[in-house]
Amino acid sequence: MHFLPDDVTVEVEAGTNLLQAAMMAGVHINASCGGSGLCGKCRVILESGVLESEPSDRLSDEETAKGYRQACRSRVTGDVEVRVTVESQLDARALNRPRPSRNAARMAVEPGVEDLKAKGLFNPPFVKKLIRLSPPRRGDNISDLSRMINALRTQHDIHNLSVIFSVIKKLPDVAREEDFEITVTLSYRPSFVIEPENARIRLVNIQAGDHTATTYGLAVDVGTTTVFGQLLDLSTGQPLDTYGEFNRQISYGEDVITRIVVAGRPGGMEKMQGLIVETINHVLETLCLRQKVDREEICMVTLAGNTTMTQLLLGVNPRYIRLAPYVPTANFFPPIPAPSLGLNLGEHVLVHAFPSVASYVGGDIVAGLIASGVYREEPLTLYIDLGTNGEIVIGNRDWMACAACSAGPAFEGGGIKFGMRAIEGAIEDFSINPTTLEPMLLTVDLKKPKGICGSGLINTVAGLFEMGVLEANGRYNRNLSTKRLREGEDGYEYVLSWAAETEIGRDIVLTEVDVDNFIRAKGAMYAGYLTLLEAVGLSIRDLERVVIAGGFGRFVHLEKAIMIGLLPEMDLDRFTFIGNGSLLGAKLNCLSNNLRQDVTHVVNQITNFELSEVPSYMGHYVAAQFLPHTTREYFPGVMARLAETRRLIEG
Amino acid sequence: MHFLPDDVTVEVEAGTNLLQAAMMAGVHINASCGGSGLCGKCRVILESGVLESEPSDRLSDEETAKGYRQACRSRVTGDVEVRVTVESQLDARALNRPRPSRNAARMAVEPGVEDLKAKGLFNPPFVKKLIRLSPPRRGDNISDLSRMINALRTQHDIHNLSVIFSVIKKLPDVAREEDFEITVTLSYRPSFVIEPENARIRLVNIQAGDHTATTYGLAVDVGTTTVFGQLLDLSTGQPLDTYGEFNRQISYGEDVITRIVVAGRPGGMEKMQGLIVETINHVLETLCLRQKVDREEICMVTLAGNTTMTQLLLGVNPRYIRLAPYVPTANFFPPIPAPSLGLNLGEHVLVHAFPSVASYVGGDIVAGLIASGVYREEPLTLYIDLGTNGEIVIGNRDWMACAACSAGPAFEGGGIKFGMRAIEGAIEDFSINPTTLEPMLLTVDLKKPKGICGSGLINTVAGLFEMGVLEANGRYNRNLSTKRLREGEDGYEYVLSWAAETEIGRDIVLTEVDVDNFIRAKGAMYAGYLTLLEAVGLSIRDLERVVIAGGFGRFVHLEKAIMIGLLPEMDLDRFTFIGNGSLLGAKLNCLSNNLRQDVTHVVNQITNFELSEVPSYMGHYVAAQFLPHTTREYFPGVMARLAETRRLIEG
Repeated sequence: MHFLPDDVTVEVEAGTNLLQAAMMAGVHINASCGGSGLCGKCRVILESGVLESEPSDRLSDEETAKGYRQACRSRVTGDVEVRVTVESQLDARALNRPRPSRNAARMAVEPGVEDLKAKGLFNPPFVKKLIRLSPPRRGDNISDLSRMINALRTQHDIHNLSVIFSVIKKLPDVAREEDFEITVTLSYRPSFVIEPENARIRLVNIQAGDHTATTYGLAVDVGTTTVFGQLLDLSTGQPLDTYGEFNRQISYGEDVITRIVVAGRPGGMEKMQGLIVETINHVLETLCLRQKVDREEICMVTLAGNTTMTQLLLGVNPRYIRLAPYVPTANFFPPIPAPSLGLNLGEHVLVHAFPSVASYVGGDIVAGLIASGVYREEPLTLYIDLGTNGEIVIGNRDWMACAACSAGPAFEGGGIKFGMRAIEGAIEDFSINPTTLEPMLLTVDLKKPKGICGSGLINTVAGLFEMGVLEANGRYNRNLSTKRLREGEDGYEYVLSWAAETEIGRDIVLTEVDVDNFIRAKGAMYAGYLTLLEAVGLSIRDLERVVIAGGFGRFVHLEKAIMIGLLPEMDLDRFTFIGNGSLLGAKLNCLSNNLRQDVTHVVNQITNFELSEVPSYMGHYVAAQFLPHTTREYFPGVMARLAETRRLIEG
Repeated sequence: MHFLPDDVTVEVEAGTNLLQAAMMAGVHINASCGGSGLCGKCRVILESGVLESEPSDRLSDEETAKGYRQACRSRVTGDVEVRVTVESQLDARALNRPRPSRNAARMAVEPGVEDLKAKGLFNPPFVKKLIRLSPPRRGDNISDLSRMINALRTQHDIHNLSVIFSVIKKLPDVAREEDFEITVTLSYRPSFVIEPENARIRLVNIQAGDHTATTYGLAVDVGTTTVFGQLLDLSTGQPLDTYGEFNRQISYGEDVITRIVVAGRPGGMEKMQGLIVETINHVLETLCLRQKVDREEICMVTLAGNTTMTQLLLGVNPRYIRLAPYVPTANFFPPIPAPSLGLNLGEHVLVHAFPSVASYVGGDIVAGLIASGVYREEPLTLYIDLGTNGEIVIGNRDWMACAACSAGPAFEGGGIKFGMRAIEGAIEDFSINPTTLEPMLLTVDLKKPKGICGSGLINTVAGLFEMGVLEANGRYNRNLSTKRLREGEDGYEYVLSWAAETEIGRDIVLTEVDVDNFIRAKGAMYAGYLTLLEAVGLSIRDLERVVIAGGFGRFVHLEKAIMIGLLPEMDLDRFTFIGNGSLLGAKLNCLSNNLRQDVTHVVNQITNFELSEVPSYMGHYVAAQFLPHTTREYFPGVMARLAETRRLIEG
């Protein structure tokens, strides 16, 4: 589709909301209600092609006849050209600068099963085989177990396997149920458990009759906030469905520290374990229900979570994670029978939890490294998980170093006056008219605004900073004249959305205190990059690639995150979003025994740095408390662009 | 001590009952009350030395002054010479024949820990080590687990170990309880579980402080009738205590077949498993109480039982063991966590059950083979377990063959009119006055007779047969004139004990029907030896050694068992009683990892024969239905002795 007068073309999927398409294209259209249709400001004129638009009481019949449409009520269904109405043209001209390809920058590389197959990495650790036994008779009365083992040898050339007790226990009945036709589930043991790898096969389940077509695995990202499960068909490698919901522990506190405190109270550990297990069980139940999959057909479950979540789930008290010198109980945990944790899975199903590196660099990061392949490739890569812990890893196939930046909760909306998680009604994207200083807001699900989430915060701070509304020190420009900038009860603030246009009936504002908190968070991250690089004798210029993990990354615009100094400045095509790296790693773990075998290697290869113990960290942290940074040389492109923007606005 | 007029010297332990000493010496003293002091017939005269005798109302003061004593009320405390009173002299003269050394024949060879040490076989699979960890601090905040593993490496040179989950779970607290001083329990994995051996060490338990002095193991013989437990100090190798009680399943039936039937009923399996677990728990509790041992200090439990008992204990339904073609579920079972079976042991304690060879040659036999060393030595050995199943093994270190002879319950008192188990009041030993045909009875615990047990049966049938009271075809000699031989309600019978002298107030008799049942049992055994030998191309003369297992063997006189054709005729010094081979094997399993490693080998080396499927068995069985055997050439010594005895009696 094509925007006039900006003369910008953007390719979008059919059905994309026109306001969102404009934001993707970097075209500003005033819109202060988040896309809920309320403010009526986002008028465009349909020049050619067709738009699927809802009727709007903000447009007269005459206006509609003339081609006026409300952008937030319109969807793109084919080639179309629209013109942004007059009041916004100024901005378009003012910002007539080269636009980066946002698509390229946001591309997530999710290795599909075809990719795994091409690399010879598709070898799920669980495989089902059908065997037919000859019934016992006089002269051939070996035990049922010996009979089954012999059949596997003669019918499938499988030798040297071990058999778990529960299989033996039900063998006599299962064998005779379908006239000695049995489906056996074989497990190829993974290596990232405590025990060194051995190639042996373990027979973990038997079923009467032919069940070879139904071999499923479950990958779970056990997040502090959300739990995502993905159901996988192990025989084809295809993900069948993904489903997530909030971690039920949230009712006891939003961050890991609170959870650890609660777990330390009498009965608290059981409570915390029970809640996360309950959450996973519900995710599992939902997936099975939606896909009509029998829970008993799930052979394996791989979990990835941070160190605290992993210990809480396994019932290992994480109290020493919170106390200096921050000791986890273990990095590696052996596989644990799922039912013993309370998970509603077969008694033969073992829970494989990704091992952690340190108290604040957990299995979710290890999973992300497996998913992104940092440890397999040549380029010097910075791996970032934008969250409370702000985990970062730097390295390549030869070495890796990691640290947790303790960014705090700002990226998840914490410590921000109207901060919230990225749920319905959260402002997630922002643009500003440089002349009128009117905002263009997009909310999650295009509902009336309720608050601002992490990506909204990055995009807003960057937008305000680029247009000179916010200064490098995080103060608002007191010289600007707009009713949106005012002295509020918590100091100076910018009004994102007026009370009447919100869901909450209050003005949604971004205060200078909010901006300070946010700058502290981004500064902690950047100081982390510099400290870690310095610790291994490198500088920020040596980085060749950046991998960004976190569901969070979805609406973060790279150039905006760079502009405020959250990400290091480099060519945008060197950035990769991998989305939920934790879930992706857990998925790969279910699909590839080769990759499973890499896990121990990855953990052992990483050197953890406690930033609080590296003397130079505090200096880097203080220097990073500016937009984009005190050391302007780190951001030459940003500085040039800011200068150009200011020139355009002022000129 | 010395017996007159027989001029027999016998060495006995201080405190031995004089009547029992006479029986051991082969000296007949009339005694029909089993040694309970009631009949007053067992008078002897003290010639020299001292006897500790209880006052007796069967002797006048004058008689006592003259040196008369009641043998059954007297105990030998030092060198002593006694004269058997006149009425018994005849017999002594009549039986003036070479007496075999009964001691030699009854010697049980129980390998002690010194023996194991001498052979380099003392290496218990569980060892405790004390480690001291340096507490975590800034700059050294590796996980608790890594810290412990490092300490084992640096302080004990122990590498490459795996750690079970329960240890990890309690590690943080246990480590800090005694200021980072920890006792770790290491397990060296056994090989007779399903998984192939690997030399790796497994860390299975941790305790705060120093617990290295208390490392215990439990060996259990899980018998159909009785359950024996032995508590072992694994650090010294010394058995601390042995205790047995009846298998509580007995209330549901005496033999394995009944138990299988009960287990097949709804809820029956759980009932049967619960009862045997309850029995073992009580044995365990008693041992711990008696030895003041904390149950938590028991590291391991090894069980040996027949195939049915093993499956019932593990909760694996044994129904197909009873149905042709008699299929066990498995020969090998993996180690199973003790608490999962209901055993009151630590959660880290694994149950190792001896593997079985076939449905009717179980883990108890395999344990006996390990204990007796049949599979390690050169001589061609016959291993016999005298019980209902009548398991036999023939072989040496190069090969082994086994079979179950289905002897039936006669050896345990089943199918015998006054048959009973070898408990208080059971007639267990017998001798007969060839002239008067009066018996000398010894009962268990020297109580008034209640019935006759297996060993009593063998000794009685042999005694009656030797003296011509019983003929080779199992009929009583109708020409003898004694009130003890009479026509009873079940046919001809011999009265062992008159009602007045019994506990039960009825004449205790041995009927011809009893004798027939008994001959069927002993014939089944002998036919088994011949069939098995024949199957491997050998004959009875090739046997070089016989090992007899079973608590049962305690009062069986070899020459009597040979005389009736239960045991093959050979030099008495070639027989070895090992007592409870099952318990002994279980004990060795706790003390020697080397011997543990032999178990798989033993099971795989044995070829099982189903006698019912070997055509020649029935012929051998029929031929064995005589005393000692239809083929007299198998028993030349017995035939010669019988001829001599008859000559003496008749001359």
